[in-house]
Amino acid sequence: MGADLIADLAAALPAGTVLTDPDLRRGHQHDEADLCPSGPPAVVVRPTDADQVAAAVRIAAAHRVPVVPQGARTGLAGGANATDGALVLSLTGMDRILEIDPANRIAVVQPGVVNAILARELAGHGLRFPPDPSSWESSTIGGNVSTNAGGMCCVKYGVTSEHVLGLEVVLASGERLRTGRRTPKGVAGYDLTRLFVGAEGTLGVITEITLALRPVAEPALTLVAVFDTTAAAGAAVAGIAAAGSTPSLLELVDRVHLAAIEAYLAGAVGGRGGTLGLRTDAAALLVAASDTGPRAATELAEIEAQCRAAGAGEVYAATDPTEAEALLAARRLAYPAIEHAAAAAFPGGNGGVIVDDVAVPRTALAEVLDQIAGIADRHGVTVGVVAHAGDGNLHPNILVDRADPDSVARGRAVFDEILEVALAVGGTSTGEHGIGLLKRDWLAQELGPVGVQVHQAIKQALDPENLLNPGKVIGW
Amino acid sequence: MGADLIADLAAALPAGTVLTDPDLRRGHQHDEADLCPSGPPAVVVRPTDADQVAAAVRIAAAHRVPVVPQGARTGLAGGANATDGALVLSLTGMDRILEIDPANRIAVVQPGVVNAILARELAGHGLRFPPDPSSWESSTIGGNVSTNAGGMCCVKYGVTSEHVLGLEVVLASGERLRTGRRTPKGVAGYDLTRLFVGAEGTLGVITEITLALRPVAEPALTLVAVFDTTAAAGAAVAGIAAAGSTPSLLELVDRVHLAAIEAYLAGAVGGRGGTLGLRTDAAALLVAASDTGPRAATELAEIEAQCRAAGAGEVYAATDPTEAEALLAARRLAYPAIEHAAAAAFPGGNGGVIVDDVAVPRTALAEVLDQIAGIADRHGVTVGVVAHAGDGNLHPNILVDRADPDSVARGRAVFDEILEVALAVGGTSTGEHGIGLLKRDWLAQELGPVGVQVHQAIKQALDPENLLNPGKVIGW
Repeated sequence: MGADLIADLAAALPAGTVLTDPDLRRGHQHDEADLCPSGPPAVVVRPTDADQVAAAVRIAAAHRVPVVPQGARTGLAGGANATDGALVLSLTGMDRILEIDPANRIAVVQPGVVNAILARELAGHGLRFPPDPSSWESSTIGGNVSTNAGGMCCVKYGVTSEHVLGLEVVLASGERLRTGRRTPKGVAGYDLTRLFVGAEGTLGVITEITLALRPVAEPALTLVAVFDTTAAAGAAVAGIAAAGSTPSLLELVDRVHLAAIEAYLAGAVGGRGGTLGLRTDAAALLVAASDTGPRAATELAEIEAQCRAAGAGEVYAATDPTEAEALLAARRLAYPAIEHAAAAAFPGGNGGVIVDDVAVPRTALAEVLDQIAGIADRHGVTVGVVAHAGDGNLHPNILVDRADPDSVARGRAVFDEILEVALAVGGTSTGEHGIGLLKRDWLAQELGPVGVQVHQAIKQALDPENLLNPGKVIGW
Repeated sequence: MGADLIADLAAALPAGTVLTDPDLRRGHQHDEADLCPSGPPAVVVRPTDADQVAAAVRIAAAHRVPVVPQGARTGLAGGANATDGALVLSLTGMDRILEIDPANRIAVVQPGVVNAILARELAGHGLRFPPDPSSWESSTIGGNVSTNAGGMCCVKYGVTSEHVLGLEVVLASGERLRTGRRTPKGVAGYDLTRLFVGAEGTLGVITEITLALRPVAEPALTLVAVFDTTAAAGAAVAGIAAAGSTPSLLELVDRVHLAAIEAYLAGAVGGRGGTLGLRTDAAALLVAASDTGPRAATELAEIEAQCRAAGAGEVYAATDPTEAEALLAARRLAYPAIEHAAAAAFPGGNGGVIVDDVAVPRTALAEVLDQIAGIADRHGVTVGVVAHAGDGNLHPNILVDRADPDSVARGRAVFDEILEVALAVGGTSTGEHGIGLLKRDWLAQELGPVGVQVHQAIKQALDPENLLNPGKVIGW
């Protein structure tokens, strides 16, 4: 059947589109998630237009072979993981920016356009597409849309779905659906656009995206505040929100990450050495920015006042955009630094990091940080937390020794207990990484039986044969 | 069967909840839409909690009687119209504000809370729920959510759906579903919240709403610009957007409305007389505002420059919030004034106004205004246009003599041709009023066959017996 599938695909699609090289297939087996199963696909199809996507979907349906859509595979929940024998649809070849319309502030793109490439094109028109996941230099707009990706911008500008006006989608039937609109405003019919955004390829394959753009932001002013307790940092975040400030970025870096970042800078950056002079004995650092132009200095002063009222020991404000960018450096280094710390903690090349992602009410931030510290202690596991603090989105990074099944099991236990805590305080199982394979059980718990049943009813209505990315999100 | 239904309802629900008085039933027959059929309901149920809603839905299902949810019936598309023998579920009794959480910037409300009452409560906490439909003094949050209502705020703050975090919904099965979250951020599972927002009660009955709030806006500065041609006004709107300005309001009032407003003020306001001194020979007025605090004066100057560059003859800027409010008066009077003009044009008490609502790309605004003028001339019908110009949302108001079938037929023809024009320029059949009964055929045309099929598949998945508000939006 595999041979028939490939022959049918090769007959229907242009040369170079149907890829069967074993190394290439293995290279498309999974995304960057941990703890998720995957299997080698039977074939990788790399279409260049929606007709080819539709043809591939119809042929896969005829052979009853699952279709797994993929972008740059930078996802962190296994949503793009292949299964043994599946057809991987790699959308990276559909990488054209079809239209930029400055007067109407929209862009129309294919799904394989890389976020950073679009950002640079748009900047030339004085425009931007706000979502800025940390993978933005390599991740695709299609992947951003399918996972409803976030980033540091979200505290002010929201996740990806808030910037998508319309879609073209190839359905499980091979039919092409257009959703949404090109106008700034419109409420006609059910909001199918939002249904497909964040559905992780389980309801259809996105082949074109109409984006709502914003004017480029004014240069941001930035400050860093140092706290001796996580409670004080949490109180500052709540105070900033309660005071009505609208920071364009409000990030938290915890003690574990501070130490990791300083160690990383001191030793590991190609021998260049030097540190940021961060106080590694602090419990937490908050990084805040305001991009409100002439108003930014006032807003930043208000934020500083909230930090001091909550007990910040020191506050450093950048006096210009260059210095502001330098203050953000610590936050940007958090992930490479914690990976380096894991490698140092478990010699032999087996140190690894399990990345978690939960979102909680802003006011629960300090409590959840303390509970995470307690969970880590109880299991004897190192957990560092970076957070998009302004919107309560935490990334607990769990250090494990991949060569030691006990270490991995304890890491997994910590991961699960953190999710329990997040749901218990009224939070959600994912702030921006999505459900994929990683959190299906947690989604079911969050939704409850009626929520699961409605998800399944919608999946069955749009994909009755369970052809599209089966097993992901709500899969069976 | 009607008697059985009522007996079953009365047995299951508290006294005073099941209403059968004929006048009261007739009073719940329709909303404020024109051109839409309606019929007297068999019974009006006025529940005070979700359990009662669920009980009513289950009993209606057992009797195979359609359920028509209603708020304040201020809708303009017939989405709340009853049919002969239906069960009307009036949610106006579920009018409690359950929670306001300033630190997390959320509110939890029952659907029957009136927009203006919530607005006043929130203002006391320095917060607001932006959507400001012109019906805001009487319309309910549940109605705003079910129709995805808009208003003047949308050019900067978006329609209702952008401010809803989560819902409780009673499904056709009588089960209670919770969607969404209480956290600022979250991407877990399909976006069911957005699926129910704007579904006009066809997929479930909304019984609780979690709203995302914003800090109160700073006092806005406002200007009015006068244009001799609609082309110039349209060019100004496009120029303002292209320049990257973010007005908090950008409204257009056309010549027909200018004359109507001046006539209304001169004669009809309880004999108080006096006019705004508007130039009734102008082709269009633009009203713009900026609420960016200390930045507002600069932003308004940029907007003024764009208006002058596009050919505005005169520009009046308010120097304080009181004067700004006075400048908005003309826009706010547009609807009562045009109703007055219709009454004057067709003596005998039969003059009426058919209110239309389309949205087009900003850059098509001037062209669409000209085409509407052409259509009106061709049919010998008076059409005035007010527009949320900043987001391309036009309300053509069509004057008819209700006593004259030919006048109504010509009005209807104008209505249809305006929709044709809107779709032809890449627009949509409704910017903020919804589909209801009024625009089902136009929605089908806008969606195309695949879009209709997907709408129907979702409707069937969630409401297999076609129990909930049948015939609305995508109904059959």
